[in-house]
Amino acid sequence: MDKMRRSERVLLLTQRLLARPGELFSLGDFAGSLGAAKSSLSEDLALVSEAVARLGVGRIETLTGAAGGVRYLPVMTGAAIADLAEDLCRRLAEPERVLPGGFLYLTDLVFHPALAAAVGTAFATRFTPVQPQCVLTVETKGIPLALMTARSLGVPLAVARHGSRPSEGPAVSINYVSGSSGRVQSMALPRRAIPAGSRVLIVDDFMKAGGTSLGMVDLVREVGGEVAGVAVLVATAEPEKKLVDTYDTLVVLEAGPPYRAEPGPWVKEIRRF
Amino acid sequence: MDKMRRSERVLLLTQRLLARPGELFSLGDFAGSLGAAKSSLSEDLALVSEAVARLGVGRIETLTGAAGGVRYLPVMTGAAIADLAEDLCRRLAEPERVLPGGFLYLTDLVFHPALAAAVGTAFATRFTPVQPQCVLTVETKGIPLALMTARSLGVPLAVARHGSRPSEGPAVSINYVSGSSGRVQSMALPRRAIPAGSRVLIVDDFMKAGGTSLGMVDLVREVGGEVAGVAVLVATAEPEKKLVDTYDTLVVLEAGPPYRAEPGPWVKEIRRF
Repeated sequence: MDKMRRSERVLLLTQRLLARPGELFSLGDFAGSLGAAKSSLSEDLALVSEAVARLGVGRIETLTGAAGGVRYLPVMTGAAIADLAEDLCRRLAEPERVLPGGFLYLTDLVFHPALAAAVGTAFATRFTPVQPQCVLTVETKGIPLALMTARSLGVPLAVARHGSRPSEGPAVSINYVSGSSGRVQSMALPRRAIPAGSRVLIVDDFMKAGGTSLGMVDLVREVGGEVAGVAVLVATAEPEKKLVDTYDTLVVLEAGPPYRAEPGPWVKEIRRF
Repeated sequence: MDKMRRSERVLLLTQRLLARPGELFSLGDFAGSLGAAKSSLSEDLALVSEAVARLGVGRIETLTGAAGGVRYLPVMTGAAIADLAEDLCRRLAEPERVLPGGFLYLTDLVFHPALAAAVGTAFATRFTPVQPQCVLTVETKGIPLALMTARSLGVPLAVARHGSRPSEGPAVSINYVSGSSGRVQSMALPRRAIPAGSRVLIVDDFMKAGGTSLGMVDLVREVGGEVAGVAVLVATAEPEKKLVDTYDTLVVLEAGPPYRAEPGPWVKEIRRF
């Protein structure tokens, strides 16, 4: 009977935690709603945590102190990240993606909810060791990936926009040269979006010369933050030298059409483990 | 021993399904990786499904046929939706949200990953009965909510943009009058983003006069789709008559400052059950 109750509790805990990734649940609330002592609950959580880790779908994090609690953060295995990158390469090579003028249609991919979630989890897995405190992107197509990365890391999202708005309050604005168009553009971020001293992970959908990413790096420094990394979904093979020193891309795209892509260097590296 | 294995299988199934909401898993894959007969698997899934429904965190959907499988779709209870709306009302009333010029700062809320996820689940719960096949929003601040709504419904997201781009291919473009600025603006949607005949749920963060929502309604009709509903996070109390006939808002905002908000009519209705 006792065994039975434990397995039920474990199932309920798993469902609560996995249904709302990144959200902090108080141990007291759990103990109350499950009718269990806190000591039993700790043992239950250890079981859930072990099973989650064994399956390779994430980790259970327990934060101590007054604002403490427990939460589920999604994580992917190296093999799953490699599969995701290879699947994306196959999709980028689909001939029906080539648009009039030879452009490559990516819009359905960057706005695909399940794909955005998987990519966000892959980026979070990559950057968890440096503990970003915030994710930054610039409107528009990077938003789904950046949101999902922030969710998997359990941190807030900040979005820079082209021009400041009265409804966003005092803003920090910078000019940057978009590498693809060669034009000077500006982006603005509400002052209160990134607290000074934050470690910020920059996320975007596409990198050609790297001008937009460099703009975001400047913006982070301007608000007194620190860049924890730059993660992009697709980077072009040419130019090989980008305007940012370091970045991680899920896939590298050769010039086309026809378009051919391969997994990024860090993906190739983790696949070896 | 048999009991033990069942409870382990149930835990593994729960983790796989809940870690990736909206994604379709094939029953054959599950049976293979769990080393279980399909008949045992059906019984396991029934247990998971029952527990998920009892907890009020969603539902397990089994699709039959060649493209069939099983997936987890998040759903919220009426009480949880009411709690979410009331929490949002409290946050909107925070005095530090009032910006120079008397504007209300909402940016941190619309870009908050866990809040966007909860609101998306609330909208999906509201509109599941009419089975939307696609979610539509317009850049920028509606994107997180729309993405999370699409994810909870297990359908794609389409995003209209201000102006068409060569990298998005042939587009449908319409003009609309933004109620807040009174100016004529245009929005464009790639032709391939919404298949003709689709039932489309429109999602946005804020509605004042309703001009932007009306623009999206026109866009849906222009691509040969059908409007399944209009869902917004915040609608202003004034003007009471909006440019769209029907819409559902999570909260209604009185003119300010100071700002006061209350749950929307449909939220008040479901709270009674």
